[in-house]
Amino acid sequence: MTNRPFNYDLDPSTGLPSRYDHHTLRKLSSMAGQFFDQAAYQQLLEQEDVVLYEVYELSRPAVSGELISGISVIHPGRVGDEFFMTKGHFHALLETAEVYVVLHGQGMMVMENPEGDCSVETYQPGRVIYVPPRWAHRSVNTGPDDLVFFWVYPANAGHDYGTIERQGFHKLVIASTSGPQILDNPRWKPAS
Amino acid sequence: MTNRPFNYDLDPSTGLPSRYDHHTLRKLSSMAGQFFDQAAYQQLLEQEDVVLYEVYELSRPAVSGELISGISVIHPGRVGDEFFMTKGHFHALLETAEVYVVLHGQGMMVMENPEGDCSVETYQPGRVIYVPPRWAHRSVNTGPDDLVFFWVYPANAGHDYGTIERQGFHKLVIASTSGPQILDNPRWKPAS
Repeated sequence: MTNRPFNYDLDPSTGLPSRYDHHTLRKLSSMAGQFFDQAAYQQLLEQEDVVLYEVYELSRPAVSGELISGISVIHPGRVGDEFFMTKGHFHALLETAEVYVVLHGQGMMVMENPEGDCSVETYQPGRVIYVPPRWAHRSVNTGPDDLVFFWVYPANAGHDYGTIERQGFHKLVIASTSGPQILDNPRWKPAS
Repeated sequence: MTNRPFNYDLDPSTGLPSRYDHHTLRKLSSMAGQFFDQAAYQQLLEQEDVVLYEVYELSRPAVSGELISGISVIHPGRVGDEFFMTKGHFHALLETAEVYVVLHGQGMMVMENPEGDCSVETYQPGRVIYVPPRWAHRSVNTGPDDLVFFWVYPANAGHDYGTIERQGFHKLVIASTSGPQILDNPRWKPAS
């Protein structure tokens, strides 16, 4: 991997990067047990294993001082009344932050820390969102179009997906006639 | 300082942040000895101690894992034939990177590492530029309008301005009839 400076360009209409090292494509089947309405999840999965979101990463060595950056695209859609969303994760090295810059679309970032404090930030174009160290984060697309954002985090942060897979987030984002609603997740359970 | 998530919005026309913790305003007088044409520097300074650039910072604790972000605005202008530019610096903790996202304007980022390798990246809106660990960096506004960019770096990086103040960068960016030219800096000198 180069130790020289480099650049990449974000397409002005889509936000997609002109180059990247990894492209991760997350389908519905990778989110078993994560959505509130499990019957709707099964029904949708039998119709089509849809792509929920895509991540374009510019990789760097996993050492302190390096930064990993890239673009995420959360596609619009719902599983029952729950919006398409990312798996969500803590950083494996818990004491690491992340910075987001929203490029397109609408949505919410659902966050919580191991102490059980919860926070929801609203995505809107031109907004920078700071995820402090210790806060798990999930992106939810509440709009009719792709939600696209730039992100950067310490390259030694790593990902802990397992904690969220086991216990879920405390909060859900559900469509309602009055717009997106933030609800307590009745299926949340403490890590065993 | 809060350990909860927070956000700030970038004005779509100016790129300026809706809030910040520190605003640094760098005037010509803070750049003594940095411009190639010292006679032009003195002449301009006697006319007016103009503002060369401004930095808006969202502060975070200076510890590993936290990230400092913000916006820089380099105003257009020249000292003789040399474009307005930032002081430029190494990070005090040398092995730390920085990521830029260009919002408005045109320019060049001049970089070098302690081994004497040099690199120049071009600023254009929508471009992400990666400054790897070990690379000093200076922003040069080569256009007629403000050069505005978002940046983020590890909060424990710190700044070493002194090395550049003493030795300069290896490369200069000078206006010419055929556009901005990158030249060797005849006044560059190794750190004593």
